[in-house]
Amino acid sequence: MTGTLKVALLGCGTVGSAVLRALQEQADDLGARIGCPVEVAGVAVRRPSHHPDVPAHLLTTDAHGLVTRDDVDLVVEVIGGIEPARSLMLAAFAAGKSVVSANKALLAEDGVVLHAAAAEAGVDLYYEAAVAGAIPILRPLRESLVGDQLSRIVGIVNGTTNYILSRMAETGAGFGEALAEATELGYAEADPTADVDGFDAAAKAAILASLAFHTPVAAADVHREGISTVTATDVARAAEIGCTVKLLAICERVPGNGSATGDSVAVRVHPAMIPTSHPLASVGGAFNAVFVEAESAGQLMFYGQGAGGEPTASAVLGDLVAVARNRVTGAPGPGVTGYANLAVRPMAETPTRYHVSLDVADKPGVLASVAQEFAQHGVSISTVRQTGRGDAATLVIVTHSAPDAALSATINALREMPAVRGVTSVLRVEGLQ
Amino acid sequence: MTGTLKVALLGCGTVGSAVLRALQEQADDLGARIGCPVEVAGVAVRRPSHHPDVPAHLLTTDAHGLVTRDDVDLVVEVIGGIEPARSLMLAAFAAGKSVVSANKALLAEDGVVLHAAAAEAGVDLYYEAAVAGAIPILRPLRESLVGDQLSRIVGIVNGTTNYILSRMAETGAGFGEALAEATELGYAEADPTADVDGFDAAAKAAILASLAFHTPVAAADVHREGISTVTATDVARAAEIGCTVKLLAICERVPGNGSATGDSVAVRVHPAMIPTSHPLASVGGAFNAVFVEAESAGQLMFYGQGAGGEPTASAVLGDLVAVARNRVTGAPGPGVTGYANLAVRPMAETPTRYHVSLDVADKPGVLASVAQEFAQHGVSISTVRQTGRGDAATLVIVTHSAPDAALSATINALREMPAVRGVTSVLRVEGLQ
Repeated sequence: MTGTLKVALLGCGTVGSAVLRALQEQADDLGARIGCPVEVAGVAVRRPSHHPDVPAHLLTTDAHGLVTRDDVDLVVEVIGGIEPARSLMLAAFAAGKSVVSANKALLAEDGVVLHAAAAEAGVDLYYEAAVAGAIPILRPLRESLVGDQLSRIVGIVNGTTNYILSRMAETGAGFGEALAEATELGYAEADPTADVDGFDAAAKAAILASLAFHTPVAAADVHREGISTVTATDVARAAEIGCTVKLLAICERVPGNGSATGDSVAVRVHPAMIPTSHPLASVGGAFNAVFVEAESAGQLMFYGQGAGGEPTASAVLGDLVAVARNRVTGAPGPGVTGYANLAVRPMAETPTRYHVSLDVADKPGVLASVAQEFAQHGVSISTVRQTGRGDAATLVIVTHSAPDAALSATINALREMPAVRGVTSVLRVEGLQ
Repeated sequence: MTGTLKVALLGCGTVGSAVLRALQEQADDLGARIGCPVEVAGVAVRRPSHHPDVPAHLLTTDAHGLVTRDDVDLVVEVIGGIEPARSLMLAAFAAGKSVVSANKALLAEDGVVLHAAAAEAGVDLYYEAAVAGAIPILRPLRESLVGDQLSRIVGIVNGTTNYILSRMAETGAGFGEALAEATELGYAEADPTADVDGFDAAAKAAILASLAFHTPVAAADVHREGISTVTATDVARAAEIGCTVKLLAICERVPGNGSATGDSVAVRVHPAMIPTSHPLASVGGAFNAVFVEAESAGQLMFYGQGAGGEPTASAVLGDLVAVARNRVTGAPGPGVTGYANLAVRPMAETPTRYHVSLDVADKPGVLASVAQEFAQHGVSISTVRQTGRGDAATLVIVTHSAPDAALSATINALREMPAVRGVTSVLRVEGLQ
């Protein structure tokens, strides 16, 4: 390829505007890094009148026409959502154009189909911006760690929920109060469902697991629990045992230990207590971090800003330069392999650990009967702390690892015990020795 | 390319053995990720009898013959040092073979020549393992962040010195005692010069700066101070002002602010106090971390194991798979650009901040005369703390930022002042607001 490399930009919101600005203001640097000049061929938007800052001759409402234009070399998709983003991407591949995307929802829903279409066309599909904003994590998984065997990823990949949980820990506020503050400050959207109920984190977990374990994982495969049920009591109880509460995206390869079904993957998003000494515990506010465990590399952590126009644009532009260089050399970069084709393990069978706080009657035999209930469900107890207060007592129990179904069945059984006046806090625990 | 991809391994020490083991034990996984089978063509060592675990038919003492063998597709260089590594790499390029290396000393000394030779031959040169062991940092700089403008990198990139400084902080030991412990435990080599005097970190700083700022920086361009002069007093003084002492590799782009000479880079390795709240402060023991500041991405941190056979092999194998995939697709990956060609700013002109502790006579006017000395050298003081003890007092001073030469001239002048009985601690300070 010679001449000038031309970029079609689909969408011009916060991220798109930042990408467009960089392509205009830093064209010389970007061109020097790519090996040829780069320019914007057009910007597809729904309402051109809403974009007075974009040169009028670039604006179009015909996204499909722009994507398939002969002079367009690569497409940047920052529309978000499933349609029309999916059709436009497929049209781009069919027309022989590489795509850079920030679209976690689409990649998590249809990554296999999109990668197959890109491979078929011999073009690139990169989407670093889809997970953890500016933090380079997908390329390290796809390329840097591709010679290693990954066992586990634990990420804080949603800034909104991390901000809310950080504020709950700092102020003692309940979820509703902290959410209201986050909304007021612009850290939470008017409809916070995607963040608060864990949909956003689940999409990112699916993408991380797919790349880390070389196996297809979709958002629907991810067990998902949000943070709206996390109480001020949960946060206080966590502090008492030297922990903090975080919404975690956890991707694990579970060894089959020679079973007929072989290894499997477990992918889940839920709030959990983690020790304050864990590297993820100090990731506060709107920051993101991804903790990776690999057989040879050991423990790694990637930390940075997980959202925002500029940080996300940094990730888009990194992919854009990489894809453009591939265009110059004439060969696409490495694709994504799904050869491992591992089964997804249901949450019920996934080993987890629980923290449980109970209000009980302070009389002989109560601890014994509670312990008996755990034993009947095959759940082993790690630590118990009993604190008396008059005729009542508080029991704080942390279990060893057991199948999640056994743990939740234990909790249900405890709620029915006459000696248990109330189950005041239940949260999973991660990262404890 | 079809058939089987064949790898020549140069060197079979700790890292080489781990790479060889992975290539043998994980050949199926690696082949699936590359897109074709991979096998070891030969292993060049100096003394074959020292390697009873390596199949005899693979061993050779003729490294040059192995590198240029027709059936070899790519070369892994883990010999280290300048020669014969350099000649072997150049021979590999001339024979059309890509190279994966872990050789920081060679890349920092001769990176420009080696990259030019690889580009000329249309092959790849990757060396993720050369900096910060298993931590993916060079590929993120070369590719993920290539669309951004980097302003600063601060790294803890030498595990030996970080272990020694961590132990000094934990136990109050002096440098000699902590070094002896590190040597006994195998964290320091018998001749610790390369680590302790900062040569290792300086080579890594040169490589980081070259990639981050798209400009050639060699090890000789790096201002280098080791940790052997760090005292127990320095470490105690750091703790008193809420700091900890780390050996830092600092790479900065210094804005030219429209001057005729333009922007420049300043690259330096020296011990410094950093606030305990800084993300790098909690990087303990033999761990490494690299903190990156970019215009759009903001602050990022990469954390993990910086040395050891297995972690380093993880980085080598990641590069190996990436280079092998490029071999399969038929085009090399993105090269390294040095287009920016920035001047290297001398340490004397580089802005830094100092912490100084002085024993002074406790009488009126001493603080005034000390402050006057700073002012005469154009150095502005940020904070002063004076503690009386009988007829003597301790002055602890933290300066604002000033050219390093002005700061060191101030220290020399203070040593000559009659009222100053002793300069008990001098260290630069980084990361303070």
